[in-house]
Amino acid sequence: MFEDAELGHTLSKEAFDRELPALREKLLEAQAALLESKRFPVLLLINGVDGAGKGETVNALHEWLDPRHVQSVAFGAPSDEERERPPMWRFWRALPPKGKLGIFFGNWYTDPIVRRVHGESRKVELEQSISTIEHFERMLTDEGVLLLKFWFHLSKKGQKKKLEELSRNKRTRWRVTPRDWENASHYDAFRAVCERVLRETSTGNAPWIVVDGSDSRYRAMAVGRTLLGALERRLAASPGSHERSVANPAPVSVRDEQGTNVLRALDMTKSLRKKDYSDKLEKLQGRLNQLSRDPRFSSRSLVCVFEGPDAGGKGGAIRRVTSSLDARQYRVVPVAAPTEEERAQPYLWRFWRHIPRNGHAAIFDRSWYGRVLVERVESFCREDDWRRAYAEINDFEEQLARSGAVLCKFWLQVSEDEQLRRFEERKNTGFKHYKITDEDWRNREKWTAYEQATCEMIDQCSTEIAPWTLVPANDKYFARIAVLETICARLEAAFADE
Amino acid sequence: MFEDAELGHTLSKEAFDRELPALREKLLEAQAALLESKRFPVLLLINGVDGAGKGETVNALHEWLDPRHVQSVAFGAPSDEERERPPMWRFWRALPPKGKLGIFFGNWYTDPIVRRVHGESRKVELEQSISTIEHFERMLTDEGVLLLKFWFHLSKKGQKKKLEELSRNKRTRWRVTPRDWENASHYDAFRAVCERVLRETSTGNAPWIVVDGSDSRYRAMAVGRTLLGALERRLAASPGSHERSVANPAPVSVRDEQGTNVLRALDMTKSLRKKDYSDKLEKLQGRLNQLSRDPRFSSRSLVCVFEGPDAGGKGGAIRRVTSSLDARQYRVVPVAAPTEEERAQPYLWRFWRHIPRNGHAAIFDRSWYGRVLVERVESFCREDDWRRAYAEINDFEEQLARSGAVLCKFWLQVSEDEQLRRFEERKNTGFKHYKITDEDWRNREKWTAYEQATCEMIDQCSTEIAPWTLVPANDKYFARIAVLETICARLEAAFADE
Repeated sequence: MFEDAELGHTLSKEAFDRELPALREKLLEAQAALLESKRFPVLLLINGVDGAGKGETVNALHEWLDPRHVQSVAFGAPSDEERERPPMWRFWRALPPKGKLGIFFGNWYTDPIVRRVHGESRKVELEQSISTIEHFERMLTDEGVLLLKFWFHLSKKGQKKKLEELSRNKRTRWRVTPRDWENASHYDAFRAVCERVLRETSTGNAPWIVVDGSDSRYRAMAVGRTLLGALERRLAASPGSHERSVANPAPVSVRDEQGTNVLRALDMTKSLRKKDYSDKLEKLQGRLNQLSRDPRFSSRSLVCVFEGPDAGGKGGAIRRVTSSLDARQYRVVPVAAPTEEERAQPYLWRFWRHIPRNGHAAIFDRSWYGRVLVERVESFCREDDWRRAYAEINDFEEQLARSGAVLCKFWLQVSEDEQLRRFEERKNTGFKHYKITDEDWRNREKWTAYEQATCEMIDQCSTEIAPWTLVPANDKYFARIAVLETICARLEAAFADE
Repeated sequence: MFEDAELGHTLSKEAFDRELPALREKLLEAQAALLESKRFPVLLLINGVDGAGKGETVNALHEWLDPRHVQSVAFGAPSDEERERPPMWRFWRALPPKGKLGIFFGNWYTDPIVRRVHGESRKVELEQSISTIEHFERMLTDEGVLLLKFWFHLSKKGQKKKLEELSRNKRTRWRVTPRDWENASHYDAFRAVCERVLRETSTGNAPWIVVDGSDSRYRAMAVGRTLLGALERRLAASPGSHERSVANPAPVSVRDEQGTNVLRALDMTKSLRKKDYSDKLEKLQGRLNQLSRDPRFSSRSLVCVFEGPDAGGKGGAIRRVTSSLDARQYRVVPVAAPTEEERAQPYLWRFWRHIPRNGHAAIFDRSWYGRVLVERVESFCREDDWRRAYAEINDFEEQLARSGAVLCKFWLQVSEDEQLRRFEERKNTGFKHYKITDEDWRNREKWTAYEQATCEMIDQCSTEIAPWTLVPANDKYFARIAVLETICARLEAAFADE
């Protein structure tokens, strides 16, 4: 991995000065074309050994590019707002939008590597981190992000020499911290871990680019040229060409003769009498209220997802949940068309931004599953996009669960007849008529397509950490009680786990 | 202020149950109309004495309204990301967008009141806080926010009784914290401070609504009806009618015979030889770099603003500043047309979101001054809007300065002839041609209008805490050095102050 980077590449001042003007001009041109087209974002990861000139090289890039459209972020210790959410949240919130460049120092590689070198994590945990990273980067590149991962390398001797040089010079002394020397003393262990991580994460869509860090001109030119080449290639390619051109095999669902599927298997006659409903409701709301004030909830969060056909009773069920909670504690996120800023980001970005802190709840009225439901059925995205969404969603939910979130996903199912009845009722009831739109009637015509998409979604995304709860919701009382019971039970199970 | 609220208003269960269905229906209708029109946001402030039912009332509102478009936020202790910015930043980031409702508990009134009651601040500091609040609320209402400030009141006896009641009941005991009892023991002092604050901040545009908190039905109905009335009135009014219908007197600038103004008084012949430039540049960049690494900068931030005619050399000057800093430390914010999410917020929101943390720099390429420059000249906003912007901007900058930000505002002036020369040059130079657009040529035709707007802006917004630095920039070398010298001097002065 590091053989070439230990050869001690250099570039003479003459060659550097000769090449630089043309490189800068072309970089600025490519950057302007990127900004104008807003076709994709560019993300540079800057990693490597201390003293290999990471900061200097990035400063050079800032000088060469138009710095107004480049954003460098150094991720040091997480802030308290970041610590109370899944680890990847801080990277999501800093992602550059389409048309811009982002440069991440101290990114998602730092913590897994450092912890492993210092023996703070086991091998299996490193494996898990690598797998998270692979999935995340796959998602980024599938979403069109031009991802360039630079590794700045120095040999053991080279690093020692460099740190000594920097320490001797009064003007550069501040750059060498005691931590750098401490890290240097672990060079061999560090190198071994890094080599492994680089090997496993150097994929076709996001290969590592190892840069010999011993000569400042050489490394800057290498990075500049690599960036330019990648930018030019991508700009020259036709839009969408980064995507897999050959569709992957799609699972074919064979319908059995009875047309049975998970939705049709639901017992839609389930119901509750009003009296039973009232009694249960009061008890469950009290129970949920208690749970939300349990001290153990302060290191947990609650994420609920409500999906289902229009007029399935999502709003009513959500209100029974929220009225058990304190208004300061939850946020209902109604998912509608993405905003301009959201459209300039990977698909899941607009959900990540609403991930609650510990001690809080987020209730999604429709959710990230829109990708594999409405966007699939209405052809708002390409087949490749919604096919890969299953795995991306499972990753996302796994990260939520791993960070302590209790995740409850409800599918509120109503029959076609019951939906029609409710549509008519809404049309004719004063304060409900705002709830019914032309779109609702249109969606109804695609009942079968939605049913198929739903069954596939449930199959793909009902996991042990985040199972789907399918609720027969022809009877609203029954549905609301089922929802509340599930949330209470899952919170209790989570608390008991501790 | 509190006389009526101490009368012990009550509402019978029968009356409450009779009225509620109609109130809910109308609230939902008004909320739906608001959401559809997206004309303005609604912000409810919830303040008052402990035990007066603030939380319960808001929970009731959440039940009555469509909770998907209501966001309640409780501001407790600030997070570390909030502590490192001006105190109002946390409120700005939580403002509801047009069409939605926000409910703020523990808002901008809490801290000034609590600190004063506990003797942690002097009278004059409270005065200052009140003045900040008045300006902020004036800005909100001028921007169209429907601001409803509710004060939940209880008499001294009433509060004691309430807290005892809550403590006796097993299910409500958790609501009463030791802090509540502690606060209650300061009731008289608390009341005195609050009465004064309420009096001074009960303005025509944002009056206080004092609610008797002793009866849960009465207070909920009072708040619900008030909200409904305010919503309906505002929705029925024609758009823009909340704005002052009569224009305030506008200062008339009398031109003297020579046509002298601050821009024309600049000595545009100032220049530097290349050799002098190079020497000074290196020294100043070194000096700025040292300053940015000074330990004292870790409790400071740097905010630079660059304005001036097109082709005035803003980009070049910015690059000389950024290349003195570490890329991880600064962010350049190019100000272009606002995004959809930004358009749904008060004007200054899109600048507040880029306010840097301590130890960091934000460099604005064009800025909030667009309101009184391009938006004024091109009539993108109404005269009222840009006229009030002067005071709003001064407030904003004062908050920045008070929180430790060092603010440097540069006007890079070029003459009409020099601008023309640069436009031609840009047209003909490969890697500069992306910098020139049709709009630049159009703006040039309005030279005089821009000049007038600029002079008035400088007059109105060059304050002792945030002076404008006018830089004759026909010679780029001279301008860049002047910019760097100013930044260094202002940082040094700020450090010396400590």
